[in-house]
Amino acid sequence: MAKKSFPLSKVYGLLEPGPVVMVTTSRKGKPNIMTMSWHTMMEFEPPLVGCVISSSYSFDLLKVTKECVINIPTFAIAEKVVGCGNTSGANVDKFEKFCLTPKPASQVGAPLIEECYANLECRVVDTKMVAEYCFFILEVVKAWIDPAVKNPRTIHHLGSGSFMVAGDRIKLKSKMK
Amino acid sequence: MAKKSFPLSKVYGLLEPGPVVMVTTSRKGKPNIMTMSWHTMMEFEPPLVGCVISSSYSFDLLKVTKECVINIPTFAIAEKVVGCGNTSGANVDKFEKFCLTPKPASQVGAPLIEECYANLECRVVDTKMVAEYCFFILEVVKAWIDPAVKNPRTIHHLGSGSFMVAGDRIKLKSKMK
Repeated sequence: MAKKSFPLSKVYGLLEPGPVVMVTTSRKGKPNIMTMSWHTMMEFEPPLVGCVISSSYSFDLLKVTKECVINIPTFAIAEKVVGCGNTSGANVDKFEKFCLTPKPASQVGAPLIEECYANLECRVVDTKMVAEYCFFILEVVKAWIDPAVKNPRTIHHLGSGSFMVAGDRIKLKSKMK
Repeated sequence: MAKKSFPLSKVYGLLEPGPVVMVTTSRKGKPNIMTMSWHTMMEFEPPLVGCVISSSYSFDLLKVTKECVINIPTFAIAEKVVGCGNTSGANVDKFEKFCLTPKPASQVGAPLIEECYANLECRVVDTKMVAEYCFFILEVVKAWIDPAVKNPRTIHHLGSGSFMVAGDRIKLKSKMK
């Protein structure tokens, strides 16, 4: 299905609820995927995202290329998400192993994962906290969303293989952005 | 109801799913509450939490006292959570206005919110990113949980007054911590 461009000013609403995401990186034509839950919004617009990516094949790729894509999966591919979290890209092509489809991004070298309902193309803009905390600050430079997915059943990590699946949506009177 | 001490090694499972939290601070006997969604785990144990607390009454209190409590509410008190997000502690006693109960913490000067199912007593351990991003790094020094709450219906901010309420729990074969 065709994804639509998504306004950068609304990206915070995708990441604030805390979904498990899949971070893609790529170097010399070899893409990789990492499953990740330790991320937070840091600014609305341009959207800044802080995330912990500890020592791994993805860490090395991100440090060198300074580009990645944050892909947001739903319950429909939960098994693949966990599979990617349980393997290292150093010796496995995760796209092939988990039957995931890489699509070219528009602004960065890392691929979008087609099976994810939203994709955020990112550039590393601050590495001051990488040495001490493996904490990267990313700027989202382009966002995509599948307009057919209305209430995405995102998955949220509770530890040790347990996940919460996004439930009901409610509306409250709020002045908060 | 009586809360139980909760192992610090398991705190990540409370914050990783991305719940809206209420941060309490206190100075000169005057406590305050701030509603917050921009947080991430940064280390398992001792648990480190990074969070964005931008210019506000809570920001001032946290900068001076270097102590706070992260309180995790559920859907049951969603209206109070949003109410706290819509007011400033500079001119309102939010505990009084929203009928919330402050309880003394064991390690820090800020109070626990009794109506929240989990409370994390925190000390600021790194302020290097505060000037640029209002990003504080906290260490959780003591955690409390209500053992009666099995599958907490945490709330997750989607922006502009919309929230997702935690849904089903699932278990997948994972080697992830």
